[in-house]
Amino acid sequence: MTFAAYIPPQAKDGPVPVLWYLSGLTCSHENAMTKGGFQEHAARRGIAVIYPDTSPRGAAVADDKAYDLGQGAGFYVNATRDPWRPHFRMYDYIVSELRSVVVDNLPVQDRHGITGHSMGGHGALTIALRNSELFDSLSAFAPIAHPTQSDWGRKQLSAYLGDDESAWSCHDSTILLEEHGWKGDILIDQGANDQFLELLKPEALADVMARRRQPGLVRMQKGYDHSYYFINTFACDHVDWHAERLHQTRH
Amino acid sequence: MTFAAYIPPQAKDGPVPVLWYLSGLTCSHENAMTKGGFQEHAARRGIAVIYPDTSPRGAAVADDKAYDLGQGAGFYVNATRDPWRPHFRMYDYIVSELRSVVVDNLPVQDRHGITGHSMGGHGALTIALRNSELFDSLSAFAPIAHPTQSDWGRKQLSAYLGDDESAWSCHDSTILLEEHGWKGDILIDQGANDQFLELLKPEALADVMARRRQPGLVRMQKGYDHSYYFINTFACDHVDWHAERLHQTRH
Repeated sequence: MTFAAYIPPQAKDGPVPVLWYLSGLTCSHENAMTKGGFQEHAARRGIAVIYPDTSPRGAAVADDKAYDLGQGAGFYVNATRDPWRPHFRMYDYIVSELRSVVVDNLPVQDRHGITGHSMGGHGALTIALRNSELFDSLSAFAPIAHPTQSDWGRKQLSAYLGDDESAWSCHDSTILLEEHGWKGDILIDQGANDQFLELLKPEALADVMARRRQPGLVRMQKGYDHSYYFINTFACDHVDWHAERLHQTRH
Repeated sequence: MTFAAYIPPQAKDGPVPVLWYLSGLTCSHENAMTKGGFQEHAARRGIAVIYPDTSPRGAAVADDKAYDLGQGAGFYVNATRDPWRPHFRMYDYIVSELRSVVVDNLPVQDRHGITGHSMGGHGALTIALRNSELFDSLSAFAPIAHPTQSDWGRKQLSAYLGDDESAWSCHDSTILLEEHGWKGDILIDQGANDQFLELLKPEALADVMARRRQPGLVRMQKGYDHSYYFINTFACDHVDWHAERLHQTRH
């Protein structure tokens, strides 16, 4: 598994907090590293950024011809069905395996925020909502917000977890937020001209946030689509969001 | 020929100046567009940015297996030797053909600055120095500064223009600057840890600028290499440099 890590200059003076950026369908560790524009702001605010890959890779790893299943499309779950079961354990990889590698080997504090885009926004939200003790700040760019009711979700959850939909709900941020809420506030950015709005379903998440009086904000950004230009434009705000929360004195 | 154009919001209120960005070896129109970070600053300063490709493309176009010759490596010359002669006319493409397309079809002023990286920095310098009436501002990132004396240059100039080296000197910015100077000032940024310093030869250009008392600055940037992270970091300074000169009242 390849991942990228940005370490800011402030790490020379002591360990810095970590921001996890989870990428979307088809991406590797490299896309956001080269196109997201986070490092400039992470350098300014003194936080490390970790960019994991989106799936296991390699000739010995199961795959599918579709862009939205298999390699590049791990969906941040632990697969229980073959042929995916042996390698597709992206949930555990983010929650524990890579986290240990990062904390044990890089000049960072054990203090974490998490964000991501599209499938990675789904990953950030679901992983944080299920592990609130592990993360102190949370945001997402155009997340797949309600995958149990979307073609970006039903196909993959069925393939990785089987047809019993009761196993899917713990990977749906709208359902998780409705059930558990989140201890802090949440920043969601969504392009109003996103070509995938029907698949992302931001209205499901916005609705549950409003009904639950969940602190946070959902920003529908005029004119923006689903691309890295959208991410790059608001990278500044998200890094600031996480930095403000991660640099607070811990309670 | 594919090119990219960024048009800033200010173009709604009237035509804006143009900054040309010429890319380096192996790049298409897309690399700097997605990784350079220029658009944010062009939006702030109200200038358009044009990203040309680095060569003709396609199955009917001559090519070479090497990364540094043929498609993706036009070197901004008009080839006079086969098999390159029919299509490899990147000098004319930048100086006149694409310029007409841009000025005639986009909401821009006929007022231009030019910059570029590596082979594209070579292109920006040589094209501006030979056509000072066409450009009002000039900069470069890690340019191939003295190609007639470098393996990044001798191979390509020989292939495209033949072995008579007298035909090469009008494509060498160190020689051109020595002979003609430049009407304005020039900004050169160069990474001090660039892995290609022996091929780029910034010392040749720095020497002639100092000897000729050419207004401008050569900045040797501590710790930076040849990558897009280097370009992205200083994109702000270069856009400001061009904007300050292009927005001045024309004389």
